[in-house]
Amino acid sequence: MRKPKIVVLGAGYGGLMTVTRLQKQLSHDEADIVLINKNDYHYETTWLHEASAGTLHHDRVRYDISEVINRSKVNFVQATVEDIKTEEKKVFTSEGEVEYDYLVIALGAVSETFGIKGLHEHAFMIANINSARQIREHIEYQFATYKNEEEKKDERLTIIVGGAGFTGIEFLGELGNRVPELCKEYDVDPKKVRIVCVEAAPMILPGFDPELVKYARAKLEKKGIEFSIGTPLKEAKADSVIISKGEDEVEEIKAGTIVWAAGVRGNPVIEKAGIENMRARVKVEKDLRAPGHDNIFIIGDCSLMINEEIDRPYPPTAQIAMQQGEVCANNIISLLKGNDEGLTAFTPDIKGTVCSLGEDDAIGLVYGKKLMGTKASFMKKVVDNRALHMIGGTSLVFKKGKFKFF
Amino acid sequence: MRKPKIVVLGAGYGGLMTVTRLQKQLSHDEADIVLINKNDYHYETTWLHEASAGTLHHDRVRYDISEVINRSKVNFVQATVEDIKTEEKKVFTSEGEVEYDYLVIALGAVSETFGIKGLHEHAFMIANINSARQIREHIEYQFATYKNEEEKKDERLTIIVGGAGFTGIEFLGELGNRVPELCKEYDVDPKKVRIVCVEAAPMILPGFDPELVKYARAKLEKKGIEFSIGTPLKEAKADSVIISKGEDEVEEIKAGTIVWAAGVRGNPVIEKAGIENMRARVKVEKDLRAPGHDNIFIIGDCSLMINEEIDRPYPPTAQIAMQQGEVCANNIISLLKGNDEGLTAFTPDIKGTVCSLGEDDAIGLVYGKKLMGTKASFMKKVVDNRALHMIGGTSLVFKKGKFKFF
Repeated sequence: MRKPKIVVLGAGYGGLMTVTRLQKQLSHDEADIVLINKNDYHYETTWLHEASAGTLHHDRVRYDISEVINRSKVNFVQATVEDIKTEEKKVFTSEGEVEYDYLVIALGAVSETFGIKGLHEHAFMIANINSARQIREHIEYQFATYKNEEEKKDERLTIIVGGAGFTGIEFLGELGNRVPELCKEYDVDPKKVRIVCVEAAPMILPGFDPELVKYARAKLEKKGIEFSIGTPLKEAKADSVIISKGEDEVEEIKAGTIVWAAGVRGNPVIEKAGIENMRARVKVEKDLRAPGHDNIFIIGDCSLMINEEIDRPYPPTAQIAMQQGEVCANNIISLLKGNDEGLTAFTPDIKGTVCSLGEDDAIGLVYGKKLMGTKASFMKKVVDNRALHMIGGTSLVFKKGKFKFF
Repeated sequence: MRKPKIVVLGAGYGGLMTVTRLQKQLSHDEADIVLINKNDYHYETTWLHEASAGTLHHDRVRYDISEVINRSKVNFVQATVEDIKTEEKKVFTSEGEVEYDYLVIALGAVSETFGIKGLHEHAFMIANINSARQIREHIEYQFATYKNEEEKKDERLTIIVGGAGFTGIEFLGELGNRVPELCKEYDVDPKKVRIVCVEAAPMILPGFDPELVKYARAKLEKKGIEFSIGTPLKEAKADSVIISKGEDEVEEIKAGTIVWAAGVRGNPVIEKAGIENMRARVKVEKDLRAPGHDNIFIIGDCSLMINEEIDRPYPPTAQIAMQQGEVCANNIISLLKGNDEGLTAFTPDIKGTVCSLGEDDAIGLVYGKKLMGTKASFMKKVVDNRALHMIGGTSLVFKKGKFKFF
């Protein structure tokens, strides 16, 4: 008798959670499990701002997939997913076709540039290990070049960060700590360095508690970071950005480095596959299945769920993706057992949100309690270690966890 | 009574040797000693190929000048020397004028591009800490960018080294060790990397023993380095070099990094000062004074001395510069004492030459004995530590010496 085949696309937080839960609960003869991922490693998307700034080496931000999957139960295929043909129940990858009975789409988000001119060409995105590494090296190269060029171009040492949301602010926090190190490493006068955050919205960290936001901004400004708020970025050029300062007024800021951290959209494979979507995200059913597709689950960045309390979508976070992975695994097992009626409805359980401001500082709301400074920073590391623990257990926490608490 | 004023320009091997010998032999009331240098640190020119390749951090390649001078006897001025007016006995610097009674010109060499088109614009030179650091960062940025770009440009990972003389070969030795590390750091397939050495002369390391040269070439080729010998570099472009392959034949090699390590000339200040010179080097008298200038000594890279055994100039080496520094200091002291007739004639005492092929390998001729492999590599480190010892004594050797012998 042919075993049912479960194919999981993506080894991010959601995908790995699904696979580790499936391998724990299913025996060899109950199903074939296939995990498809572009790299042979998982990376911590929520730590990429550190690798990008250079405050944490990228090898500390990733681990081998083989460390957390049970090879005797899970067949890992390293390949890039290119398309899905839902009628044929097939996934098309860079390494060939894979058939499925049940499909879990746990592919990651891509940067959203909102059609802003020049961004795709001239801005770096904090998207994955490769791009984070390039940002780090680009900034270091700007410092090294500045020090060696005959006619000093001060603008080389200006870094523009587009976006004052979660990623933008966390990246700024790291840069604030990193710049003094860079100045020492390259013998550069710290007064020559400028870091400017450009945000279209009228505030930073929209949705966060105002008291915490005030604390964050003050701490970042103390590190020398400038904020240009309520001023949309209009265009990125090779060596500058143009920002709107009012009706007809614009300002050009020369900059050696432009990093865009202002938005993400779902994975383009969703659009290619023809599944109904909004910006490549699918408004999933309560049981996490794609509407009209009984055998396709969508979790993580490509899933869209409305928080009915505020009538806005939940943000794509690691916390929700992992919770979805658990429910998704359980629901697939129910289906395998023919229990179509017993699928669990997913409800996010938001334990809290902590926004880092560098290794030693943070703000957060945890179980309804406001935190800032070292307490919040401690909690951030607990959250980071918890994600490692949920996927890879204690041994992974010891290997890749964050323990420099003070 | 006014004390005679001795001004030393440059804190390289020759300049520091002169100053440390003068401060040891002269008391406070015998002379004013002024040392003028662009940076507040000395760097090991002979180790720059390591900092450029990234195999040794640039902070290991330099030390503070304050560590080796006696501040109570020597007045250190951090300034860039811009001109010398010999009739007025004045040095003009970025920080103002300085008068002298006795002048020691120990300024360093600059790269010689022999008028080759595009070299100045598109090639890096292994010239000082700043340029070495930029080369290291440039190469790392090429690897990081390659890994993150959508359409892979393999030529990004090609490094052209112009020149198979001493510096070129030592740099190639370090690159051979560094590239496997870079491939690991940036997840790049080593097969994609090319290192090509382009040399106009018909052999590598001209003047070296043929058996040692053969050993060096074989070892470097084993590390994947290609040699294009007897093929002058005609032009450097932003992303390629053009080399002559015969009468009318040329070859273009696309490359992300071009490093020119094929020649140096004296310091341009010599030419500006109007002292008779050849490529900014002055054919000094036996007592190291500039012809026609009783009170000006020229040592190190800007001095030119003929090796009469082979009727060719001695190469500008650290070994000779330091020996000159000692004689120069003694001769100044003789002049101070009114003993114009008792000046010592300088004769280089070449103890040997060791060319490194990476941390773990080298070739050399020491006291007439041929060495290769670990023995030569050991001797290279002895030579490096000896230079530290001569200028800064035992404490400097412990601080900055090389002890990883095997």
